[in-house]
Amino acid sequence: MSSHCVDTPAVNDTPVHQHTPRFGKVVVFGVGLIGGSFALALKAAGEVGEVVGFGRRLGSLTQALELGILDRAGFNVGQEVSNADLVLIATPVGKTAEIMARIAPCLGAQTVVTDAGSTKGDVVAAARAHFGDRLGQFVPAHPIAGAENSGALAARADLYRQKQVVLTPLPENTLANIARVRAAWECCGALIKELAPAEHDRIFAAVSHLPHLLSFALVHELARREDQALFFSFAASGFRDFTRIAASHPVMWRDICLANQAALIDELDRYREQLDELRAVLQRGDGARLEATFEAARAARRAWAESRAPE
Amino acid sequence: MSSHCVDTPAVNDTPVHQHTPRFGKVVVFGVGLIGGSFALALKAAGEVGEVVGFGRRLGSLTQALELGILDRAGFNVGQEVSNADLVLIATPVGKTAEIMARIAPCLGAQTVVTDAGSTKGDVVAAARAHFGDRLGQFVPAHPIAGAENSGALAARADLYRQKQVVLTPLPENTLANIARVRAAWECCGALIKELAPAEHDRIFAAVSHLPHLLSFALVHELARREDQALFFSFAASGFRDFTRIAASHPVMWRDICLANQAALIDELDRYREQLDELRAVLQRGDGARLEATFEAARAARRAWAESRAPE
Repeated sequence: MSSHCVDTPAVNDTPVHQHTPRFGKVVVFGVGLIGGSFALALKAAGEVGEVVGFGRRLGSLTQALELGILDRAGFNVGQEVSNADLVLIATPVGKTAEIMARIAPCLGAQTVVTDAGSTKGDVVAAARAHFGDRLGQFVPAHPIAGAENSGALAARADLYRQKQVVLTPLPENTLANIARVRAAWECCGALIKELAPAEHDRIFAAVSHLPHLLSFALVHELARREDQALFFSFAASGFRDFTRIAASHPVMWRDICLANQAALIDELDRYREQLDELRAVLQRGDGARLEATFEAARAARRAWAESRAPE
Repeated sequence: MSSHCVDTPAVNDTPVHQHTPRFGKVVVFGVGLIGGSFALALKAAGEVGEVVGFGRRLGSLTQALELGILDRAGFNVGQEVSNADLVLIATPVGKTAEIMARIAPCLGAQTVVTDAGSTKGDVVAAARAHFGDRLGQFVPAHPIAGAENSGALAARADLYRQKQVVLTPLPENTLANIARVRAAWECCGALIKELAPAEHDRIFAAVSHLPHLLSFALVHELARREDQALFFSFAASGFRDFTRIAASHPVMWRDICLANQAALIDELDRYREQLDELRAVLQRGDGARLEATFEAARAARRAWAESRAPE
């Protein structure tokens, strides 16, 4: 499917060519980096009439209002979602089920709901538990756009530009509802992919969740030594890059690991087997095998880097 | 010890204040990134009279001459090292022993030799085997200044500026010879540390060699799957940083792993135990323990990053 937002005329004040936004009212739960950037991107594209936000902390809501992310802070969930075109759940993943339970009874017939969680199996299970016969209105999604910083202050209209967003549609979704969610992310400049929820979780266990676990593990193993300061004092640029993700948010990554427990254990076991193999190669001093392993890794890493869009 | 090169007056053409370079003649074996940058840095500091280079490939030597890294390409090893002030062995580590064997019989009484290998136990063993009663003239060193690129073309005068260089002096070294090598690296702008060779290898096994092995292992494990393309297509910025070092040079890293085999296996085993622990934590769904582990890692990673000089 091609982008819906290419060549959309810019919003201007001339009533003759007034552009009608694709989404009249968007409700965002969680106005941090992810939800905030989504709102800013839709606004920059001129594709949203009004953004209403809910958040746990008054300070975040106030900040989001001041930054122009929100038009209004919401008070009555039921009332706001009953006539919303689109609802984005962008809270920490541990809160997703609770929000689903609150909004499900009040959804308007035309309202489409999506989320931004890093795991999808658990989100789909929560949706099945809470949305009942409105399950078809929920289209799960995962924008692949992390950042060092979090919070509304870090939100930017271009966070999703040229970044992937993975939709994991449900059998109950109508094509029309899937297309609505796809269009919203395309308006943010994202590249849309589709996967089944289990396939999504299996892939991200391997290319994202496991590397995070391994990076945390390396730093943790060093940090608990008595002479840790000596080790850290000689760490250089290779260590810096390998461990950058060990500075990620502990609660977010705890939740991701628990939510994707089975797939992550599966990947961890494959990796442990790989390490067992390499240990044996090292033990017997098999230079040819070591070199072949490193060469294959380097070739794959280079091919991957070349296939990526420039950053 | 404070730097010997701070406030050294710049070289100029006025004979009245002619600066006498600290090193008259320097011989470099291997004119790639490491040896080339060393030569350029000494020249930029005005601390070398003449740089003579040896290399296996004529093309590299010609290039190094054209780039002003070398004043001359050497032909007769014995003759060149007999009256050199300083010799740097900066070849791939697998060639070190062979060069030691060639230069040992011809060393002048005043000549000091150093190297740039990433491992030190093997280099010291080779030195003990080849230098005989001239062992005291060899002061082992390891400049911690990797780079993506290699070769003379990548050499730069500022490669070592504010980077660490670890000396691992031998009991046979005189303080004067250690001071000569220290002064040479300080003239390149480096920060000098000293470690015993075994301590060096233990530390770098943990903070450099193991992370490289782990990064190679992750990419290799993915690359050998039938559906590898699917996995790589969803890898993003966390994967990019974690695997940057998996694009490192396979032969160089094969040699490092073999040279530091015992310490690396020791570190790998500690890491495998850490992964076994984390697997158990994950299996029993122990969120509190996961979060505490990630939090401790993040705190240590942040403290390390803050302690580093800005790049």
